[in-house]
Amino acid sequence: MGEGDQMLKKRMNSVPLNFIRIGDKFWKKHIDLVEHAIIPYQWDAMNDNIPDAESSHCIENFKIAAGDSKGDFYGAVFQDTDVAKWLEAVGCSLAGHPDKELERTADEVINLIGRAQQPDGYINTYFTIREPEGRWSNLTEGHELYTAGHLMEAAVAYYYGTGKRKFVEIMSRFADLICDTFGKDKKLQGYPGHPEIELALIRLYYVTGRKSYLETAKYFVDMRGGEPNYFLEERKQPGYKKIFPEFEGYLPLYSQSHLPVREQKTAEGHAVRAVYLYCAMADLAYEYKAQGLFSACEDLWNNIVQKRMYVTGSIGSSGLLERFTTDYDLPNDCNYSETCASIGLALFGMRMAQITRDAKYVDVVERALYNTMLAGIALDGKSFFYVNPLEVWPDNCLEKTSREHVKSIRQKWFGVACCPPNIARTLASLGQYIYAVNEEGVCVNLFIENDCELRLGGEIYLMRIKSRFPQEHSFILQVTGETALPGLWIRVPSYGKNYQIVCTEEVIGEGQKSGKDAQILGRRVACSIEKGYAHILEDVAGKTLQITFDAPATFVRANPNVRADAGRVCVMRGPLVYALEEVDNGANLEALYVDTKQPLTETYEPELFGGVVTIKAHGKRVEQSQWSESELYGTKPVTLTDTELKLIPYPYWNNRGEGEMCVWIKERL
Amino acid sequence: MGEGDQMLKKRMNSVPLNFIRIGDKFWKKHIDLVEHAIIPYQWDAMNDNIPDAESSHCIENFKIAAGDSKGDFYGAVFQDTDVAKWLEAVGCSLAGHPDKELERTADEVINLIGRAQQPDGYINTYFTIREPEGRWSNLTEGHELYTAGHLMEAAVAYYYGTGKRKFVEIMSRFADLICDTFGKDKKLQGYPGHPEIELALIRLYYVTGRKSYLETAKYFVDMRGGEPNYFLEERKQPGYKKIFPEFEGYLPLYSQSHLPVREQKTAEGHAVRAVYLYCAMADLAYEYKAQGLFSACEDLWNNIVQKRMYVTGSIGSSGLLERFTTDYDLPNDCNYSETCASIGLALFGMRMAQITRDAKYVDVVERALYNTMLAGIALDGKSFFYVNPLEVWPDNCLEKTSREHVKSIRQKWFGVACCPPNIARTLASLGQYIYAVNEEGVCVNLFIENDCELRLGGEIYLMRIKSRFPQEHSFILQVTGETALPGLWIRVPSYGKNYQIVCTEEVIGEGQKSGKDAQILGRRVACSIEKGYAHILEDVAGKTLQITFDAPATFVRANPNVRADAGRVCVMRGPLVYALEEVDNGANLEALYVDTKQPLTETYEPELFGGVVTIKAHGKRVEQSQWSESELYGTKPVTLTDTELKLIPYPYWNNRGEGEMCVWIKERL
Repeated sequence: MGEGDQMLKKRMNSVPLNFIRIGDKFWKKHIDLVEHAIIPYQWDAMNDNIPDAESSHCIENFKIAAGDSKGDFYGAVFQDTDVAKWLEAVGCSLAGHPDKELERTADEVINLIGRAQQPDGYINTYFTIREPEGRWSNLTEGHELYTAGHLMEAAVAYYYGTGKRKFVEIMSRFADLICDTFGKDKKLQGYPGHPEIELALIRLYYVTGRKSYLETAKYFVDMRGGEPNYFLEERKQPGYKKIFPEFEGYLPLYSQSHLPVREQKTAEGHAVRAVYLYCAMADLAYEYKAQGLFSACEDLWNNIVQKRMYVTGSIGSSGLLERFTTDYDLPNDCNYSETCASIGLALFGMRMAQITRDAKYVDVVERALYNTMLAGIALDGKSFFYVNPLEVWPDNCLEKTSREHVKSIRQKWFGVACCPPNIARTLASLGQYIYAVNEEGVCVNLFIENDCELRLGGEIYLMRIKSRFPQEHSFILQVTGETALPGLWIRVPSYGKNYQIVCTEEVIGEGQKSGKDAQILGRRVACSIEKGYAHILEDVAGKTLQITFDAPATFVRANPNVRADAGRVCVMRGPLVYALEEVDNGANLEALYVDTKQPLTETYEPELFGGVVTIKAHGKRVEQSQWSESELYGTKPVTLTDTELKLIPYPYWNNRGEGEMCVWIKERL
Repeated sequence: MGEGDQMLKKRMNSVPLNFIRIGDKFWKKHIDLVEHAIIPYQWDAMNDNIPDAESSHCIENFKIAAGDSKGDFYGAVFQDTDVAKWLEAVGCSLAGHPDKELERTADEVINLIGRAQQPDGYINTYFTIREPEGRWSNLTEGHELYTAGHLMEAAVAYYYGTGKRKFVEIMSRFADLICDTFGKDKKLQGYPGHPEIELALIRLYYVTGRKSYLETAKYFVDMRGGEPNYFLEERKQPGYKKIFPEFEGYLPLYSQSHLPVREQKTAEGHAVRAVYLYCAMADLAYEYKAQGLFSACEDLWNNIVQKRMYVTGSIGSSGLLERFTTDYDLPNDCNYSETCASIGLALFGMRMAQITRDAKYVDVVERALYNTMLAGIALDGKSFFYVNPLEVWPDNCLEKTSREHVKSIRQKWFGVACCPPNIARTLASLGQYIYAVNEEGVCVNLFIENDCELRLGGEIYLMRIKSRFPQEHSFILQVTGETALPGLWIRVPSYGKNYQIVCTEEVIGEGQKSGKDAQILGRRVACSIEKGYAHILEDVAGKTLQITFDAPATFVRANPNVRADAGRVCVMRGPLVYALEEVDNGANLEALYVDTKQPLTETYEPELFGGVVTIKAHGKRVEQSQWSESELYGTKPVTLTDTELKLIPYPYWNNRGEGEMCVWIKERL
């Protein structure tokens, strides 16, 4: 371990989104929001057609840069990424849900981007309109390469979703310019303040085959953190203009440039930047069979998931600068835990899983997607959390205080609108997380109901999953094909007990019930356990497998070194973290204790959040009634009274009005 | 209540510092630091003679403004206050400890200030050197009136300490200019962003008798918070220059200008600004017999002490903007709790006590002085806390994170050096907190060993207190005078049980032991309890009173609405809050529980911190050994092991190296 011998010779890949249809009860309602709510809403936002929302101006910026319109640039230096992220979400959505009208609108935006492209291939409305002489002069804060990366990712997604290559060609011209500008013996030996271009160039390489994109990505990653530090040198240049006041006293750690990446053992700095960088490092480790780089990925991954990750799969303990802090520092009420950072962690984990065929990575991906990513969006798709605390007291979430970043209700749309479109593209591309495929076979990673057409070594297989996961802990998998699958690995989740796979020899009928309700009549399927997967050892083509495991509601504790959680427990059921809300449990959730010696009770509530299992626990409440309102400190003893605690899945919190929320509950010891 | 009927017809006053000599075992070692360590150190700092310390340049600024030296202004806009606060500390120190050499140095600085004074009386080196045209153009951030106030307070202290009036005369010329500039029908109808000038003008009025100073102070207070808001209007003026980037999106609440002061019911905004304003409000309420203003003082006081004050007497729950937040929001590990704010709270409380002769205010004054003010300075007087957390884990006190304001070790000297000189003047003027006097008699407020000469209605009384408080909960009071004292009130502290006063009829000999060791042989003294005081009903002139009470180590709980303290207790003994430190209790104080059903044990440790009572408690520790370092979350149950907890007085924490500290300990329920 640690020397890269975990890497597969041939990595696994996602299934193209147009070959997969998700019909999952848990996810479908969220995925549908992308097409019906988020994409149209964001389109209106980008065109400044939403009353009360912050102005975006991002389409207008492109029109001005293209010469279609007169005016000045407005917005942040990375305002173009709103357009990019919207187009990426559209691309992902069109793959699964063709929509001619939407596609025509998107084509027009892509044409506009093409018109805003400069003769040499450059695209960036801020620098084109405002500072044409300032190109590449501020890699620390200018976000040019970051913006380019998001446009490239959008182009790749749009190609996959529609088959149209025009956007890829536009972005390839820009990529060519970047490859001609940055590198050994080239004009600039820098690298971006905000990683993103690296993973984007690699994705562009995958659809164009142009090796220079991969090489430039590797150049950026290899240069990062060398001495002298590029960013500290850059700000000494005459004419350097600071953009963000909070970067006064800049720390290279913030942008993961404190050390060469191969020497980085701990996840540091801005959490989104970190995981985007690690995604590229993982891709490059595989492409170049770079053992040292892969070891660094393993070290960084282990540091995150063993010491710096919330139980909800979120990262970034500090509100200020949205960053990692130190091992075991996981405060619950003032953390940043950005939705985008959990999405980035899932992207990093998927790459590690695809490179290693090790399901331990998928456990974390699932944790991040089912909890933090999903908490980021309201059930109606109209409001969003950027910050994902594990404990909220609305009264102290005040502007111009240390907790000003913590919001007790989801927000409509932000000036820096990174999270909503990032959620949109993740929901629209959820299919890519379900399977991983290469010539050796297929891994079933997530238990999401879908129909999928797999192309594998010239053969076509139809994969079908029927599932009511995570409400029920079983699903049915059916593989249809002319020949036997070369290999089939079904994930054994870390929380699943009594895992078993039986073969019912029958194809599932449409009316047949999925999950535990179906009687298990078949025989056990032969399999061996390999790195968190059940490797199926028999031919299952044309057969129906029923996978079941137990994952009842369970008390989970943190390593006592996590000061914030010492003496506390949370409740998990399968991948879902549960939370107390004021609406169910009254005010002052900090006055509650849970009795972990008494059993937890699960109830399926069909009317709540579209159908969800809630959990009840026995608890105690510190009596408030003995204290007068004017008495702040006193010597009277504590009185506890019995109370019943009700918990709901964390991702659904704040869908029933504003109130207190708490994940880690005091344990009565 | 609330209608101002609590105000005395004739307020009580402090005893001039040159009539009082403190010989207290607890305080003397700290007070001596002022003369021997802090004042010389600060003098070196002000002259940039301390290696590794941030540059001050403040004496040089005055030389430049005076024309004695060439160069540019350096430092913050309020850099002059370093000189002011030093001179105030010197004035207070000289009152008790004459020092010709120091006085000569101070006289030279005062002469320098005189030379830097502009022909019209104006003094401010920043505006004189840098922006002579910018005078009074930025009351929000410019700190001109704040700086003027501190210079006036210094002048008053220097007059009291030395009898020399030159500095008072210099500052009176400036005060005259301010009175001519601000007011109805005058040039400007503004008031300061940072209150301080108000209380300073009142103090200057007390030593000059010039009514215009009192009237202008009243004008500033009356104008504050009126519509339209002065500060919001000011920034619309052409040429307005922002000084502090953090004041982007300025909230009037920050500077207590969100409402007219009489309508303010809750303590809001920057905590130091708030309490300095309230001091002036209390003085003005008395001077003008303004019942509405006094009611506001009572409301604000009650809001602080009943809902927004830490058990250590500190205020300011938000690190960002060093401000109050909301009722019961008292986080222990990310609060600001500035030392200066506790000093300001003590100043406010003393005024309220002097106006009402109600000892409830003194309880809070004592809490603030014995805990937070004292925690602000190291035992060697060479380093200081500005921020006073109640829980510290050094690992997460990282720069450029949400906890960057929290320091796990005291700091040498800051660019904004408010707290060290504020501690110095407070220690040097501690005598003013011991007694309160008017024609009706004298209150004994603090139990600090001292000899004092009281002048009262033409008579002279010698007051002597012999005390080993707070280590022992008794003291001896001796009053000597030709005639009976008109009145004597001895404070009954809120934490004192079985309070009794006996008269031994004998004068204390020098060799006689103080405190509980002395056998109580005398008879009970006749007294009645009046607003927290024992009002002595007999003539005690020439007699010796022994006051004793019980104040054993006790578990104290917070109102359960204080989320941060729910399920926790702290330990107090008399006025002292106690704390766990890592050096005594091992790492991870959050893994400890205290058993409140078992007794606390007190031990006097003569070698520790110059002699202190430490406390032991029975406790439990969450076992760490079952967890591997790489295991972040798991389902294994908690194991508790027995442990003994040792607590030391909070003000002495971090005097034995860096480590964790915790005031509020989990209670085993």
